[in-house]
Amino acid sequence: MTGTITLALDAMGGDHAPDAVVRGAHIARQRHPNLHFLLVGDEPRLVRLVRKRRKLRDRVTIRHTSEVVRNEDKPSQAVRAGRKSSMWLAIEAVREGEAAGVVSAGNTGALMAMAKLQLRTLPGIDRPAIASFFPTLKGESVMLDLGANLVCDANNLVQFAVMGEAFARTVLGLTAPSVGLLNVGTEDVKGHDELRAAAALLREPGRNLAFQGFIEGDDIAAGTVDVIVTDGFSGNIALKTAEGTARLISQFLREAFKSSLSARLGYLLARRGLKKLSRRVDPRRYNGAMFIGLNGICVKSHGGTDALGFANAIAVAHDLVAGGFNERLKAEFAAAAPPVAPAEAVPGTAPGSAAAG
Amino acid sequence: MTGTITLALDAMGGDHAPDAVVRGAHIARQRHPNLHFLLVGDEPRLVRLVRKRRKLRDRVTIRHTSEVVRNEDKPSQAVRAGRKSSMWLAIEAVREGEAAGVVSAGNTGALMAMAKLQLRTLPGIDRPAIASFFPTLKGESVMLDLGANLVCDANNLVQFAVMGEAFARTVLGLTAPSVGLLNVGTEDVKGHDELRAAAALLREPGRNLAFQGFIEGDDIAAGTVDVIVTDGFSGNIALKTAEGTARLISQFLREAFKSSLSARLGYLLARRGLKKLSRRVDPRRYNGAMFIGLNGICVKSHGGTDALGFANAIAVAHDLVAGGFNERLKAEFAAAAPPVAPAEAVPGTAPGSAAAG
Repeated sequence: MTGTITLALDAMGGDHAPDAVVRGAHIARQRHPNLHFLLVGDEPRLVRLVRKRRKLRDRVTIRHTSEVVRNEDKPSQAVRAGRKSSMWLAIEAVREGEAAGVVSAGNTGALMAMAKLQLRTLPGIDRPAIASFFPTLKGESVMLDLGANLVCDANNLVQFAVMGEAFARTVLGLTAPSVGLLNVGTEDVKGHDELRAAAALLREPGRNLAFQGFIEGDDIAAGTVDVIVTDGFSGNIALKTAEGTARLISQFLREAFKSSLSARLGYLLARRGLKKLSRRVDPRRYNGAMFIGLNGICVKSHGGTDALGFANAIAVAHDLVAGGFNERLKAEFAAAAPPVAPAEAVPGTAPGSAAAG
Repeated sequence: MTGTITLALDAMGGDHAPDAVVRGAHIARQRHPNLHFLLVGDEPRLVRLVRKRRKLRDRVTIRHTSEVVRNEDKPSQAVRAGRKSSMWLAIEAVREGEAAGVVSAGNTGALMAMAKLQLRTLPGIDRPAIASFFPTLKGESVMLDLGANLVCDANNLVQFAVMGEAFARTVLGLTAPSVGLLNVGTEDVKGHDELRAAAALLREPGRNLAFQGFIEGDDIAAGTVDVIVTDGFSGNIALKTAEGTARLISQFLREAFKSSLSARLGYLLARRGLKKLSRRVDPRRYNGAMFIGLNGICVKSHGGTDALGFANAIAVAHDLVAGGFNERLKAEFAAAAPPVAPAEAVPGTAPGSAAAG
C-alpha cells in the first residue's frame, strides 16, 4: 500500500466519458493518495478536465488518441480495427509494464477480447472470468463468472473457484472464504454433469479450499457462502435478475411512501435509516467487475455509472494491485500445477505487477 | 365458471399438512363457491379438520390413505414405492376423470414424475414445464420452465413459448401476451445455439405469437414481456435469486425502520402503504407453480406455505380449469401440428377436463 500504483484509465469509455472518468479519478485519488493515472483519450478535452483539479493534476499522465471503441462494435471488429483506440492503448500500457492495471467503462465484449489478446491468461488458467461482489445478509460475497464464458466444463468451474477464493481473500480480506457451486438444488444428484464433476474435483482431498457444495439462487443474497461459482450464462442471469428485483422493490417502496400524507411524513422521519439502506444496495458501491485470470489487473466499470461509481471501480483495481492479487493467483496455480512443469508456472515477467512497486 | 369444479388435493403434502391444506380449501371455497374437493389422506385427521368447517363440509369427499411421499424421497423411488400415497392417488383421480385438477404442496420431483407417468403429455408437447407468475413494474408476468427440464433444445423452448402464451391468456386474461427468450444480451448474436435456434423458429412467419426476441435478467421484474421463456436451470436460478434479493431488501428495510426512534415513528405513519407493498411482493400471492403440458391440470404449492398460500394455489388450478387452459393448449398444438397427423392431436378424452363441466 506504500509505493505509487499507476492505473491506466480508458478515459473515453462509458456513457459519461471522459467527465465521469476524470472526476472518478479525482475522487479515487483522495481516497488512495498513492495512485497515479495514465489517462488515455482525447488530449485537449482531458487537459481541460484535469487542469481545474489541482490535487489530480500532478498525478496524471495523458496519452492522446482520438479513436474510441463504440458500444455497438463487435468484439472481433474492435480487436481488428481498434488498435489505436483508448481502450486498446490503456490495456497496452499494462502489457508494457507502464501501469499495474487498467479500468474501462467501455464495451464489455471488446474489453474482454482485447485484454485476452494483449495480456493473455495466467499460467494454469484456461479462461479468464468476470467477478464482482454483492451485498448479502452477512456482508459481501463474490460471484463469478458473470458472462465471459457462457458454457463451462468442470475444470473451468474449478479454476473459477480457486480464482474467486483468492479474490475474496484479497478484496474482502477474508482468511478462509467458503465456496459454493450455484445449482438448482443442494443435493449431490442435482444439476448438470459438469456441475457434479466440478463438485467432485473440489472435494478432492488436499485441495486447500473451504468448499461447501451446491447452493441455490436464494443463497446468493443470504450470504450462505463467500464465493459463488457458476458459468457465465447463469451468473449473468442471476446478477441481472437481482438488479431488476432490487429496482422493482425500490419503485414499490417509492410508491408506498407517496400513497398518503401520513406515509410522506413517515418517509421524512425514517429518511436517515432509509438512506443508509439505499447506500447498502447502491449499485455504484458494487461497481467494478474484475476480469480475473489475466496477466494484469483489468476492471470493467458499468458503462452508465457516474464519477462515484467509476471511483469505486478504480478502488477495486487499486485493492487488487496493492493486495498482490495476481501474485497470489500465480502461487495458487503454481502449487496446483502438475510437478513436471513447475518452471512454466513462474515466468516472473507478468507486466501487470511490474509497475506496482 | 358456472358448473362445479372438482379438484383433488394431496392433503398430506407440505410442511403444514394436512391443516394448511384443509384451511386453504376452506378459504378457496369462499372465493369460488363452485369448488368441490377430493381430499386424499389420513381420513380420521381429515374428518376432524373438515367437521368443524361448516361451509367446507358439504363440498368435500375424503379418500383415505395412510401413505405419504416424503420430501427426501427420490422421484424414481416415489414412483416405484408410492402408489398408495396421497400424492399418487390425488393425481390418479385426475387421470380417472374424477377431478379436473390436482394441487399438492409435496415433493416437487416426485409430483412431476408421478404426473408425467399418470397424465402423460398433451399431443404435440414433448416435455411438460413448470410455470409461475411474478410481480413486475407493469403488473404480472409468467415465466417457464422453472426447473422441470435442466437442458432444453430449441423445440422444447418453442413449445414452452406456446404454452406460456396460452397460460398468460388464461390466468392473466391478456389478449396478445408478448413473449421473450431469457438470454445474456438482447442482440441476435448472444447466447447458446439453442437460444438462437429457438428465436429463429419463433420468428417464423405464420406463428401467431407476439415474440419480442431476447430479454435479460433485469427485464423479468421490469415487465418487458408478459411471458419469459427459459430452460429449467436458468429459470430456477432466476426465480430463487429474485426471492433471495427480495428477502435481503426486506431485512435491510426492517433494520432501517429500527435504526432510530424517529425511524420507528416513520414506520408507524407509513405502515398502511408499506403493508400494501409487502402484499404486492408476498410470495403467498404468487404461490402455485403450474405443471403445464400434461393431460390434466396439476399445480404445485410451495411446501412451506400456509393456508392462504395454499388457497392461492387452489385458485390457480381453479382458473386454469375454468378458463379451459388445456383445451386451448390442445387447440394451439393441433393447429401447429403437421397436416398429416391432425386426428392424433384431438383425442377428446383428456381426463383433466372430463369433470370440469
